[in-house]
Amino acid sequence: MHRLALIGFGVVGQGFAEILGEHGAAYREKYGLDARIVAVSDLMKGAVYHPDGLDIAALLAHRSDLSQYPDAPGLVRGLDALRTIRETNADTIIEVSYTDLKTGEPALSHIRAAFESGKNAILTNKGPVALAYRELQALADAKGCYFGYEGTVMSGTPSLRMARKDLAGCTFAEVRGILNGTTNYILTRMANGDSYTDALAEAQRLGYAEADPTGDVEGFDAAGKLVILVNTVFGTQIGMDDVARKGITGLTVADIEAAKSENARWKLIARVVREPDGTIRASVAPEPLPLSDPLANVNGATNAITYSTDLMGAVTLIGAGAGRRETGFAILSDLMELHSSKAHASR
Amino acid sequence: MHRLALIGFGVVGQGFAEILGEHGAAYREKYGLDARIVAVSDLMKGAVYHPDGLDIAALLAHRSDLSQYPDAPGLVRGLDALRTIRETNADTIIEVSYTDLKTGEPALSHIRAAFESGKNAILTNKGPVALAYRELQALADAKGCYFGYEGTVMSGTPSLRMARKDLAGCTFAEVRGILNGTTNYILTRMANGDSYTDALAEAQRLGYAEADPTGDVEGFDAAGKLVILVNTVFGTQIGMDDVARKGITGLTVADIEAAKSENARWKLIARVVREPDGTIRASVAPEPLPLSDPLANVNGATNAITYSTDLMGAVTLIGAGAGRRETGFAILSDLMELHSSKAHASR
Repeated sequence: MHRLALIGFGVVGQGFAEILGEHGAAYREKYGLDARIVAVSDLMKGAVYHPDGLDIAALLAHRSDLSQYPDAPGLVRGLDALRTIRETNADTIIEVSYTDLKTGEPALSHIRAAFESGKNAILTNKGPVALAYRELQALADAKGCYFGYEGTVMSGTPSLRMARKDLAGCTFAEVRGILNGTTNYILTRMANGDSYTDALAEAQRLGYAEADPTGDVEGFDAAGKLVILVNTVFGTQIGMDDVARKGITGLTVADIEAAKSENARWKLIARVVREPDGTIRASVAPEPLPLSDPLANVNGATNAITYSTDLMGAVTLIGAGAGRRETGFAILSDLMELHSSKAHASR
Repeated sequence: MHRLALIGFGVVGQGFAEILGEHGAAYREKYGLDARIVAVSDLMKGAVYHPDGLDIAALLAHRSDLSQYPDAPGLVRGLDALRTIRETNADTIIEVSYTDLKTGEPALSHIRAAFESGKNAILTNKGPVALAYRELQALADAKGCYFGYEGTVMSGTPSLRMARKDLAGCTFAEVRGILNGTTNYILTRMANGDSYTDALAEAQRLGYAEADPTGDVEGFDAAGKLVILVNTVFGTQIGMDDVARKGITGLTVADIEAAKSENARWKLIARVVREPDGTIRASVAPEPLPLSDPLANVNGATNAITYSTDLMGAVTLIGAGAGRRETGFAILSDLMELHSSKAHASR
């Protein structure tokens, strides 16, 4: 049995719980993955823990107030995040709390506590990985723990796993991606005739953009994902300040039309290049891409990434970049990798 | 140490040997994969075996006549394929011989012999997998052996691995792909104004199409790959006869122009659909795709595949479908999976 503790029970945690509730029996039969949620601890919604496992349907029924989760012999209530991480019998901590992107907290402390307790950790928040990947991976390695963070880039679309695993053995000369769905949605609307203001308003209405859209439209979100890509795929440590960053707010309808007349489309491209001398150059900026480029044809909120490799040439992956289920699946896919991996086979 | 025997030393075997020769030291350091070629047996070029490993540079220098491979104490010459499989100390058999697509021989017998000898097998020939996947996988499982066949679909572009591993946990409602580079090259030329005859002649001149192009242009090659996809990803056994197959030879310049006027492009689409009642329907046929479809924008000899899943929506992968290095990399990527897999960790 693989015991899980969820730190946070917002949309991503719920999305993951739903997937496990609906498909857990099939995963047990097909992959031998017998995953059970033993604890959920959410700062606002309360906390429940049972060493034998919680009932997923009951968790979801009381998703807004876990104090309503039905009593049972052995049930423990009210453990905070750190006690849940340290004191429960969970093998793996699923960190999906609300996290400050600038400091990475409280997720960063949760991940450290997990590894220090000898527990695996899976997270979907960019912050801790963008800020402290090397420290966290080193700590995980030292403790023999698994560190899963597939959901931090392109949600469950296996962008990091493809680079780390499926293309292992290749050297990456360049990686280019559309890593922010909000800006791609806005640029797609603009290519269809909307003004920036109208396109942003529509993105906000659909829930793609936040009331303060700065993180998306100024390229911070894409830059954070690029930092994760560089740190985990290129094996070089960079920070947010190392990314030359330019957002899409300066693009005019005239720019869009000019590109169209040249059979091109503006895209917010996150790019990392390994120079011949080994230097890593990372940038986020709008670029007019010729329609012959696979990334030029990625429209709406969809994300995509192109890995340029020595042995396989260009490999492009196109898929969802966000979403409740899609990010929940990212957690599941890390759990699957952990389950099948040699290094952690004893768990 | 992981000992390899190559059965066949044509372009794919040489491509793999080149990759290992150039990057083997890096793979040892980075992944702990210490792969050594201990034997090569080719029906036309001869055979060499040394239990401690062969020199890759010397193998490649004598790629057309292995009898010229330099003498060394302990070197054994002249073992045929089956003796190489059965009698050498290889852990893993790399089957890259010239193989008849209708019977799958001699590769089929080689793979069976490998598993019966308790050895892992990796191959890139479609035939044996399209014809006998279930039997071979069952034999591998019974003997605790690894069966690698990533290179049979889209060469080293990780189409099968992404479905089997990265998207494990998803259910596939539909898979659609451009799985034959030759026909996609021809259709791309036709979209640019060539006649079918001229486009085929150019594909032949470039080495994309064979003198007898039937296997490609009538959809047999794509159908074989589709059978492998269904058998390995959908978990349902079908054969070549279960694929409704139509080639591209009936397409006229008028058809191409009509599609263009509707913002569409003809592509030879291999498709498998799981009907609501569980029935699997597989087909290969030319289809005019709207330009908004990611597959419509895949041009030249490039391949692509779109997995439509329950949890992740549509995930599209675009990359090389053939090539000496690209297929050689497919072998390496199987070897990497085998190396990191729990089930075969003891090897």
